[in-house]
Amino acid sequence: MESKIVLKSIGKVQSDFGEDDIIRHPTRRVSMVSGLVIIDHRFNATLNRIESYSHLIIIYHMHKVTGVKELKVHPRVRKEIAKVGGFATRSPNRPNPIGVTVVKLLGRRGNIVKVEGLDSVNGTPILDIKPYTYADRKAKIHVSEWTRSLLKNSRTVANSA
Amino acid sequence: MESKIVLKSIGKVQSDFGEDDIIRHPTRRVSMVSGLVIIDHRFNATLNRIESYSHLIIIYHMHKVTGVKELKVHPRVRKEIAKVGGFATRSPNRPNPIGVTVVKLLGRRGNIVKVEGLDSVNGTPILDIKPYTYADRKAKIHVSEWTRSLLKNSRTVANSA
Repeated sequence: MESKIVLKSIGKVQSDFGEDDIIRHPTRRVSMVSGLVIIDHRFNATLNRIESYSHLIIIYHMHKVTGVKELKVHPRVRKEIAKVGGFATRSPNRPNPIGVTVVKLLGRRGNIVKVEGLDSVNGTPILDIKPYTYADRKAKIHVSEWTRSLLKNSRTVANSA
Repeated sequence: MESKIVLKSIGKVQSDFGEDDIIRHPTRRVSMVSGLVIIDHRFNATLNRIESYSHLIIIYHMHKVTGVKELKVHPRVRKEIAKVGGFATRSPNRPNPIGVTVVKLLGRRGNIVKVEGLDSVNGTPILDIKPYTYADRKAKIHVSEWTRSLLKNSRTVANSA
């Protein structure tokens, strides 16, 4: 028997990044320049002193993920890259459609938190907000060859633009 | 009406860090030296190529959190530090008891992933595993004064030990 875990939406993302953008650009990972995280008023006090941190971890429900879930996926939907396990990617196609993104905190007014770098669509339900601290920042890391390759290509494009 | 989000456990933490340790040391945040993340066999293929990364983000359900949830808490249960909003802390006392920890990947054998630095108790249900990449590592950050103060004190203790 499967063990079920019931969570609740505590707020929503408000951004210019809509579902149409995903359909038009499935291979791109769009980092929103800035957007709003609007938390339900009942959690106003839970946001107290959040502005003591420069960065936050936003945990959200990728609510638009539907259809059959595959165990293995092409990284960033790039057919030219061989499929790998979903846990080795940040693909929304995963057993639990939870997104985790580190954002820069630009400011807060009451229950409205302005952030930079949140790559989730308008209307995305928020599950949690955590402060980003030193334990979240690892000095020496290595990533997969396809991640390095994708990064290198995106840099080339950026430089030539 | 509250919007409910239903997720499922995809595996469990196996560690020497039990509930008794939390009761004995409520103010300490214990970083396990090493432990195992045991994923259900049905997701074996989802783990494919995960060892291409040095670090992983483990997302888990803090299933032992019970009782009345307060909007504001003392950071690390330290009564001498004034209460702040739960979102400004990593306290388990938060609207959705989701934990997010960055760990070092030590190795994998089939569905068993050996990691370093996971601070969750034995038996904790796993929700997701993601690769830790450059987007998760922020160069210039600042944290709250109480986080800096707690870190400074723990360093003093470590140095004097």
